[in-house]
Amino acid sequence: MRTIDWNEEAGSIVMIDQTLLPLEYRIIECKTLASLCEAIRSLRVRGAPALGATGAYGIALAATLSSAKNMAGMTKDLEIAAKTIKSTRPTAVNLAGGVDRVMDAISDAFDLNGIRDIVMSEAKKIADEDVEINKRIGAHGEKLLEDGDTVMTHCNAGRMACVDWGTALGVIRSAVEKGKEISVIACETRPLNQGGRITTWELMQDNIPVTLIADSMSGHVMSKEMVNKVIVGADRITGDAIFNKIGTYTHSVLAKEHEIPFFVAAPTSTLDPNNWEDTVEIEERDSDELRFFRDIQIAPDDVKVYNPAFDATPMENITALITEKGVFYPPFLLDEVML
Amino acid sequence: MRTIDWNEEAGSIVMIDQTLLPLEYRIIECKTLASLCEAIRSLRVRGAPALGATGAYGIALAATLSSAKNMAGMTKDLEIAAKTIKSTRPTAVNLAGGVDRVMDAISDAFDLNGIRDIVMSEAKKIADEDVEINKRIGAHGEKLLEDGDTVMTHCNAGRMACVDWGTALGVIRSAVEKGKEISVIACETRPLNQGGRITTWELMQDNIPVTLIADSMSGHVMSKEMVNKVIVGADRITGDAIFNKIGTYTHSVLAKEHEIPFFVAAPTSTLDPNNWEDTVEIEERDSDELRFFRDIQIAPDDVKVYNPAFDATPMENITALITEKGVFYPPFLLDEVML
Repeated sequence: MRTIDWNEEAGSIVMIDQTLLPLEYRIIECKTLASLCEAIRSLRVRGAPALGATGAYGIALAATLSSAKNMAGMTKDLEIAAKTIKSTRPTAVNLAGGVDRVMDAISDAFDLNGIRDIVMSEAKKIADEDVEINKRIGAHGEKLLEDGDTVMTHCNAGRMACVDWGTALGVIRSAVEKGKEISVIACETRPLNQGGRITTWELMQDNIPVTLIADSMSGHVMSKEMVNKVIVGADRITGDAIFNKIGTYTHSVLAKEHEIPFFVAAPTSTLDPNNWEDTVEIEERDSDELRFFRDIQIAPDDVKVYNPAFDATPMENITALITEKGVFYPPFLLDEVML
Repeated sequence: MRTIDWNEEAGSIVMIDQTLLPLEYRIIECKTLASLCEAIRSLRVRGAPALGATGAYGIALAATLSSAKNMAGMTKDLEIAAKTIKSTRPTAVNLAGGVDRVMDAISDAFDLNGIRDIVMSEAKKIADEDVEINKRIGAHGEKLLEDGDTVMTHCNAGRMACVDWGTALGVIRSAVEKGKEISVIACETRPLNQGGRITTWELMQDNIPVTLIADSMSGHVMSKEMVNKVIVGADRITGDAIFNKIGTYTHSVLAKEHEIPFFVAAPTSTLDPNNWEDTVEIEERDSDELRFFRDIQIAPDDVKVYNPAFDATPMENITALITEKGVFYPPFLLDEVML
């Protein structure tokens, strides 16, 4: 099933509880706004594209639950719902984006049922578009992979970060669908281990061979010729750099040293051509992510920690950029990519 | 205190229990051969040089405990002790080396007390020599560090791996002792986190400023000019490469990319000039080191794991090799380094 979806019969939102992976695969159902907000806050659903659909379905859920007797009452209910959903993760721009896009659509409605129909259809459209974009990224990108390739990836740019299919892992899925044999090396991705927990699980579900390594091993596996290509996702693409999970830049330098192609797969919605490497502030996350493993202490109490969430990979380290619009080679002119 | 030492008054071996770090600093006492063997097996003491002294003190302990009435009985007791100690970690060459060196010395003794004196003095000599060698490495190496430097290191090549002072961290200690202000960036060193657990703790004990990062962040901190030098230890130095903790090679490529000096500090006892990168087999460790964090499962049950213990850094990535004999620059002629 999709990472997040609408259950027509039950009138509820269904999702894969990602906090339980890889130990347990459990589908949870949100029948109330409160349970949805709890799921977002607890990261049961995460990943920028997946949160866009989550916000949209949240408004659709609020519309089905509303007992408003007129247009004004319904609009009021949905505005409260929009505010509540957005407040669960105030910095997640995609979550707010999904909510806003559905809210903008209600002005086209003439009556209560019209509102319910419009918000539901807009929410489904957002989810479907996300899958469609990933499939197009996959279709363009799979041409870069050859039968027998071993592809290294970092973090989780897979279907669990999206509604389905995935960006970096979507390219691998599309190549496998075309009959190519592809093996994956997944870097565990400290400190939150999205590679070790989620990427490995996703690929094993699809019977795509995957081997887990520690992040620091990437140079060694490249020098031993165990890797043919590297593919990663992107959180933000500025005029001169790819911002992605911390560690991406390190892998890009190693790929350059070993003359291994380094691909970035991401939707054009991540393009930010008016920003540059030095105009984006890199968020620092909680020190305890490196001091504790859940409740196990793994470093001294008061040790100083540097824990940036992202790093910036300069465009010259990237062999090709794969978007839903096609494959782009350096020099990357972002205006051209966005056309 | 030293990582391992002899307690004259109690007639026992004392050591810092490294399994409890960084949560607890506890000195444990081994009054019997059984408790010493348990401590070695449980890694309460670890690190190649530290194990050499441990083996030697083990024979000294056996000699003080022996109730033999004649030379033949004493020799028999010590031979049994030697076999027992070596069997605790059969692949640790330094442990066996320390035991053998002390056993070789007993042939010089004429009576029972002579044996006891000789084994004790040889064991102390081994421990003292280890400290002396590290101090010489420090004295040579500190000249490469400048006041205000921030030095990145990987794993633990510190005093907790030796009897005292340390190799890579010994160089830093010697520079600090000379009045230079040195800050350290410690990579956590997955999967066993020796950097996060032990290097940070050691340096904090000495009030040397240390910042913990995840291994994958090394490229980022270098690109942000947060690092001036890199120093690591070595497990084995062949004619063409430095074998050290997995991740060392990755850091060396990044240092080269950023034109940051990359130093290796190790005693000449690690030189192995008759071997080469491709004649040394790299030991693979248990998959569960990447599947579990103590008892917390962090990757799918049956995921394939690649977990090499070491990697090989080619000599051309190394700026200088620091031994107790001096500082050597490329091309490294190992025969010259060993003179």
